[in-house]
Formats: sequence, structure tokens, C-alpha cells
Amino acid sequence: MFTPITVYPIHGIRLGTAAAGIKNPNRKDRPDVAIIEIAANSNVAALFTTNAFCAAPVIVAKKHLNSSNTKYLLINSGNANAGTGQDGINRTLACCQVLADLTDSVVEQILPFSTGVIGEPLPVTRLTAALPVALTALDTNFWQQAAAAIMTTDKVAKITSRQFTINGHTASITGIAKGAGMIQPNMATLLAYVGTDLALSPQVLKYCLTNAIQPTLNSITVDGDTSTNDACVLIATGTSTHPIITEQNSDACQEFTTVLTSIFMDLALAIVRDGEGATKLVTITVSGAQNTAEAQRVGFAIANSPLVKTALFASDPNWGRILAAVGRSGIEDLNIDQVDIFLDAVCIVRAGARAPEYTEQAGQEVFQQPEFSIKVILNRGPCTRTIFTCDLSYEYVRINAEYRT
Amino acid sequence: MFTPITVYPIHGIRLGTAAAGIKNPNRKDRPDVAIIEIAANSNVAALFTTNAFCAAPVIVAKKHLNSSNTKYLLINSGNANAGTGQDGINRTLACCQVLADLTDSVVEQILPFSTGVIGEPLPVTRLTAALPVALTALDTNFWQQAAAAIMTTDKVAKITSRQFTINGHTASITGIAKGAGMIQPNMATLLAYVGTDLALSPQVLKYCLTNAIQPTLNSITVDGDTSTNDACVLIATGTSTHPIITEQNSDACQEFTTVLTSIFMDLALAIVRDGEGATKLVTITVSGAQNTAEAQRVGFAIANSPLVKTALFASDPNWGRILAAVGRSGIEDLNIDQVDIFLDAVCIVRAGARAPEYTEQAGQEVFQQPEFSIKVILNRGPCTRTIFTCDLSYEYVRINAEYRT
Repeated sequence: MFTPITVYPIHGIRLGTAAAGIKNPNRKDRPDVAIIEIAANSNVAALFTTNAFCAAPVIVAKKHLNSSNTKYLLINSGNANAGTGQDGINRTLACCQVLADLTDSVVEQILPFSTGVIGEPLPVTRLTAALPVALTALDTNFWQQAAAAIMTTDKVAKITSRQFTINGHTASITGIAKGAGMIQPNMATLLAYVGTDLALSPQVLKYCLTNAIQPTLNSITVDGDTSTNDACVLIATGTSTHPIITEQNSDACQEFTTVLTSIFMDLALAIVRDGEGATKLVTITVSGAQNTAEAQRVGFAIANSPLVKTALFASDPNWGRILAAVGRSGIEDLNIDQVDIFLDAVCIVRAGARAPEYTEQAGQEVFQQPEFSIKVILNRGPCTRTIFTCDLSYEYVRINAEYRT
Repeated sequence: MFTPITVYPIHGIRLGTAAAGIKNPNRKDRPDVAIIEIAANSNVAALFTTNAFCAAPVIVAKKHLNSSNTKYLLINSGNANAGTGQDGINRTLACCQVLADLTDSVVEQILPFSTGVIGEPLPVTRLTAALPVALTALDTNFWQQAAAAIMTTDKVAKITSRQFTINGHTASITGIAKGAGMIQPNMATLLAYVGTDLALSPQVLKYCLTNAIQPTLNSITVDGDTSTNDACVLIATGTSTHPIITEQNSDACQEFTTVLTSIFMDLALAIVRDGEGATKLVTITVSGAQNTAEAQRVGFAIANSPLVKTALFASDPNWGRILAAVGRSGIEDLNIDQVDIFLDAVCIVRAGARAPEYTEQAGQEVFQQPEFSIKVILNRGPCTRTIFTCDLSYEYVRINAEYRT
């Protein structure tokens, strides 16, 4: 699915994993704990889920990020530590404390992340017992191993990397993610960690991160649910020869944001391609909207419609379902008679009705591809938004019906 | 699924059906055209889809309803006549004109309704050829036949009836509906026709209809999509001995609204029970909300979550998915630590975390039932809203992936 690539290590970041048997103490056959070590003088920015029901590690990571220089990210799969109340926070803090003691850090220098089954108590003893192994394993080349350790129902590990030149200086950026949708079987969904050896001030780092995830991670959907554990971290170690970037409006900041966006696009599309039960990656572009919010609303209405998604699965170019999703998306004064729809280059709807030249065969040829685009033109304004989604298959139902059994 | 009942004829309403082979001219094995004849001096109220993309018959029926006394409802299944532009309107009008000619009416006295495949031209010749047969068949006892003729993917015909006493006068009310969700495979979804022999003024009739469908038809969801063809008609023939009801605040109006609501509840629940691929009927009650809109928003967020729906299918009381849907529903300043959740009488979540006394066995016993309730208490206000939904099964995917093949 995801093309193998050269993974550039980021000087100042080391990664180590261990098998703690978190989900099942009798099954230590695959690593489920990852530690990411961050060199001193790095800057760290992070974004977290907007779900009001956020998991204990999210609460703790947010607090620690603001109060101290981050030295370690502590990530586990197999248990989301969500819906666990104060006890969940205590358990997360206990794990952070053990890692702090082992590494001569203070607890606030540890950011915890969890993904997996919700509502189960985090197995502190098993998790912390694995920490010395993970610390011993720390290596600047272990991005792939960390990507594998944080998987839950993911079928493939998600990793991407670039080397690029900025003002004549060579720089690198490498990222990993997990997720098979906006929300995984038990809400332990999207985690992403990206590192670069450039130096960026904290404000610029946050600015770049916020801008880069809007057209990427914030533009994908598998099932329309927003996770309780979503988190995305960007680390700048400053070990490259390029001077620190401190201005949002500088060319260097813009260049870096462009590369960062391409990194997040790789990860975002990898997540949709690996969407639960997905057989297709579909790019939905809504243009001609009065504003971006309107285009986004229409895009997500199409992308999340179970009827559109089952039609995608069936390779059935059922344009009425697309048009009906546009119609119910809640856009004020929408004139459906102005709407055009294209499947790749095939015009299927013109002025709200089937295009005269359209043939079922032409539509089916587009829909039978593993990846294609749906373009909706509202013809009422200048704004555009692109959303990425996948189909809804039997396999989605099986995965989500059987996850806890 | 749906309990057989006594069907009370409504004096002043006759129903007739015919097999026109609308979807497939070679298959005339089941009726697909229904005519409902309404006696003079009846009053008719109707409500239509809010989808901006509404079908040709909806546009025409709305216009005719406002311009003349309705004499006939002309309903076909097998073709939704949606997404068909001006040609679709012309075809609908042509069918209405033939029925008008056959019955000495004017075209504005005919309200057309269509349900079935979208984007296909309505076969006017085949449809109108069947009208004499349907007219000959007109009978006050043919509600069941009409309910069957308007089905598409429905597995059961949906019919309900009551006889009741109002101020010492006997009155009857009978209704039929079709639909296996808010939206059917090709957007030709929910149609409902209810008749009573009471006399009600047009204003009161509309008032009763609007109030009765809010907690019933407007509170169900199968897949969260709103149809292009939704329509609901209420006919009052005035043939009972009860004097005409002209005051919204009268006891008679309130009593009638109560009976009417129970009729629509029968039809609404029959639709959810027959939801595409549904194996369970689940009642979601959200209480303790600051206002009804807030409770509704939370209710539909839960009811439409694919993860909640697959957990319902699997009989897996995965409360984290419910809580996550509450959390992402967009309620301002929601404190998830105040939320309680009950499965029937079993408390599963208290103060945002798993209730100490909860056992998986107790939760599973509830979820294994064909019908049960999920109660979410937000503990932040006095308002309540109830939503009815079904699960998401393999069969839903099969039906919607294979519908046009």
C-alpha cells in the first residue's frame, strides 16, 4: 500500500520499543511501547483532539507540554486509557514518573500517549516493566520500529521521510503515524510524530504545525467520528546547520511548511488507504463555494454519507447519492440546479441533472479504480476545499463488530 | 416484525393499485402504482423533505397542494423521478394530467409522489397505462394493498390503524408508510399517508401533523441521510359525526394530536425495525440537556455513529464509543465528567467513567435484546429528546452496494 522510502534519521531524536503485553499479558509477540527521546534544546509543538471526552494521557500531555522542556514521549498501544477518570490520570502519571526516575528527568518532561481499547485500566506494572528494554533500544534509526509499535488495527506501519535543501543547508524531516480512520475501534485513533533537524522557535513551530495539518490530517475521514486520543507532535531538534527560524513570514518558514505539509499528506493518505475495511481512496474536491467552511461542510457530508460510501465500495457511480448529500449538507440558499459533478474528468452531473453525454460505462471505469476523485462545483463562489475518504465495506462492519470479542 | 392489526376504513378515502412494471417492464409481478382518492370537502395537509435537492414530484405536489382542493394522490414506486430536471417535472405533470382526464379533475387536484431509483426518466406511458386498472380497483378497504404497492427495499408493508372516541363520537385513523431508513438505496425513502374521518380545519390539520411528526418521523434515523423524496400526507375527510375541529387549543385537537402521534410512532418504529440490514431497534434518550436542540444533537450523534451502530450489531456494550460520540457532538462547555449512561436499567457510565458496579455480563444482556434503550444524562439542564435508530450490519452494506446491480 504505502511505498517504502528512505528514512532519514533526525539527529537529536532516538526511538526505542519494547513488548509489554499491554492488551494481553500472554501475548508479548509484538512491541506495544515506544519511547521517543528528544535532545535538549529541541522545541516541541503538539495538537490534540477536540473531543470533549478526551483521554487521560491527552489531559496529562497537554499540561506537561506547557510546563517544561519535553525530554521523552511515552507511547503505548493496546490500551487507550480513556473513560478512566482520575484513576486513569493517576496511572498515566505513575508511568511518566517511572520513566522520569529511569532517565533523571522530572515527570513534567514526559508526554504520555495511549491508543487501544478504552475503559480498561492501564496496566502500569506491565508497561513500566518494559521501559528499561525500550530505553536500552533507543536508536536514531528506529522510526520504522516505533511506527510498528504504535499500531492497533492498522494493517501497515505509516512512515515517511524527506531530505531537502533550505537556503543552501541540507535538512531532514521524518514522521510516523498510526490510525485507520478518524476513530479506531475503541477511539484510540490517530497519533502522529514528526521530527526535523531544523531549528524553529516554539511559536513558528506551532504555526507550521497548525498550517500543515489543516489540508492533511484535518481533511481526512473514514467514519466521521473524532477520537478521544488524537494527538500530533512536531519536534525540531535544531541539529542542522541552518540558523533558527523565528519569523512566520520568512521564506524559510514557508518552505519548511510546504515540506511539512507534504509529510503530513503522506501520513494522512496512508491512514485513509488503511481505513478500516477500505478498498478505495477517494479525493473529494468541492469548489465554487462562497467560503471554505461551506465547501468543507459539503465535502464531509459526501465523504461521511454511508450511501455514498457503499456506492464507492460497489464501484457504482450513483451520482444521486452524491447530489442528495450535497442537498442535505445545510448550505443556505443552495441552488441545486447550478451544481456540476465530475468523476475524475468525466462530467456526470451538469446543472443539477445527469449530463447528457454521460454514460454509465464512463462512470464505472472511474469508480473501478482504487483511487479517483469526485469534484463538486457549487458555482456560487470562489472557495475550494478537498477532503479524503474511503469506502464502507463488509470488512468495516466486521472489524468494528468483532474488535472486543 | 410488525403486529397485524384491524385496519379501519376511513369513509371518504378509497385506495387502488396496479402493476405498471415501472422499474422493469418485464416484471409486472407486483403492484407499483397506488391511487388514493379523497372525497370532496376533505382537508389535506402535507410536509415534504428539507433536502435542497428535491425530486420533481415533490416540487409539483407542493405547488398543487397550495393551489387547489386535492382529489387524488398518485404514487409510484420503482422510480424516484429525482435529479431529472425540467424533464422530470414535465413527466410528473403528464401523469397527473392523464389521471385528471380520467377522473374529470383538473391537474392541480392531483398530488404526485415517487419513490425508487433516481436519475432515470419516469416511464410515463407505462405508468399512465396502469391508471385505469388502479381506478377500477378503488376500495375503501385497500390500505394494505396500497402499503404494499409503495414499498421499495422495505421487507414489510407498514400499516397502522386506531378507532377512538372523542367527545362521545367514534372516529377512526389509519395510516401507511414506506421506508427502510431516512434514505433508501436511491434516495426514494420515506412516504407516509394517514387518513381520519374527523373534520379538521386546514390550519388545525397542519398544526396536528407538524406536532405529531416531531417525536416520531422526525426522530428516526437509519443512516443519517435525508431523502430527496420524503413526503407525509394527512387527510381529514370529515365523515365522522364529530363537529369540525377549528381551534388549536381545543381539547379535541389535543386528543386528536395524541392519537395521531401514536399512529406516526407506529409507522416510524416500523420503518426503523425494517431499516436496511437492521437487526435491532434502539431508543436513545438524551436528558439533562440545556435545551432540546442540544439533546437532539447528542442523540443523533450517537444514533448515526458507525462505531456505535456496529457495536449494536455485535451486541457489544462498548460505552466508550457512546461517550466519544457525546464528546464530539459539538456541545459547548460540555463537562464529560458529569455524564451518566444507562443501558435499559443498567448504569454503565457514572460521572464520565465506567460505573463501579457495572459488569460486562449485565451490559451484554441488554445489548443482546432485539429492542432496548440507551439513556444519556448530561446533567446540565431540564430538556430531553428521544431518537430511534437501528444497527449497522453486513446486510446494510450488501443492500446498498448491490442495489443498482
